[in-house]
Amino acid sequence: MIQRYQKGSRMSQAVSYGGLVYIAGQVAENRKAGIEDQTRDVLGKIDALLKEAGIDRSRLIAVNVFLPAIVDFEAMNSVYDDWIDIDNPPARACTEARLADPDLRVEMTAIAAL
Amino acid sequence: MIQRYQKGSRMSQAVSYGGLVYIAGQVAENRKAGIEDQTRDVLGKIDALLKEAGIDRSRLIAVNVFLPAIVDFEAMNSVYDDWIDIDNPPARACTEARLADPDLRVEMTAIAAL
Amino acid sequence: MIQRYQKGSRMSQAVSYGGLVYIAGQVAENRKAGIEDQTRDVLGKIDALLKEAGIDRSRLIAVNVFLPAIVDFEAMNSVYDDWIDIDNPPARACTEARLADPDLRVEMTAIAAL
Repeated sequence: MIQRYQKGSRMSQAVSYGGLVYIAGQVAENRKAGIEDQTRDVLGKIDALLKEAGIDRSRLIAVNVFLPAIVDFEAMNSVYDDWIDIDNPPARACTEARLADPDLRVEMTAIAAL
Repeated sequence: MIQRYQKGSRMSQAVSYGGLVYIAGQVAENRKAGIEDQTRDVLGKIDALLKEAGIDRSRLIAVNVFLPAIVDFEAMNSVYDDWIDIDNPPARACTEARLADPDLRVEMTAIAAL
Repeated sequence: MIQRYQKGSRMSQAVSYGGLVYIAGQVAENRKAGIEDQTRDVLGKIDALLKEAGIDRSRLIAVNVFLPAIVDFEAMNSVYDDWIDIDNPPARACTEARLADPDLRVEMTAIAAL
């Protein structure tokens, strides 16, 4: 059964099916915040969606990170590395990509195991 | 069993396995068309591949949208929002990314449940 | 069961679950090499990770290619097309995206069926 979380008119914030949950691109609420705070906000949203699906970050399989300015790579990682479950790190890819709102500094998608 | 659709020498346009179908990056046939028409063309190709796999857009789990010019975001969405199954919206991420042919205005990949 | 391969402090180089293996973004060891050599290196790393998971490139479902300079598209493909299992081509998307290290010319992620 397909289950859709935080369903909006354009997208669901997460969709689960067949033992996996797919998390849509998460961005910070405070778009004027710096890269560290935006990263914390995005990771907090991922935590909340995983919780809604009944799991936590130890079940992450893969994460994609998009940075409009790749110079933010180390600052993003300083928050990301603290957040990740050190015993259960997901696969990851990080690339530079401008986002819909020019104030956004980071967006992430994720896949996790239910 | 892995099933490959519209198999070419470089890629398959879709591959199904384990209850999911993965759709390769779809681009418009008419590369001189505007963003709205290219979006309609791309979504039509996704519809056709989903049909070939025996399903329809109500089974979409996640969609990735790539726009060479992020200023096309609203125009792409004006077509996308009309197309999506309002009861079954997939997770989505949209980022700016230049594509192989500079005339292309949009590319999309998708995952759906069989 | 989730299995993590080449687990580091930031990410696993591959994670398998539910019949699939997700390969993290692979980049070349020799970052001063040209696009053809970097492509060969990346594809070799994907081969090695697939082998670690007990499979080979004939089981690839989807590949994502990121090129910091999209002008490298044909040169990357000249290596990629020779490498791919012609009877079992995965779905693919290729977009332009700058990477963490400006010397890198190509990064790839992949999903394969166990």
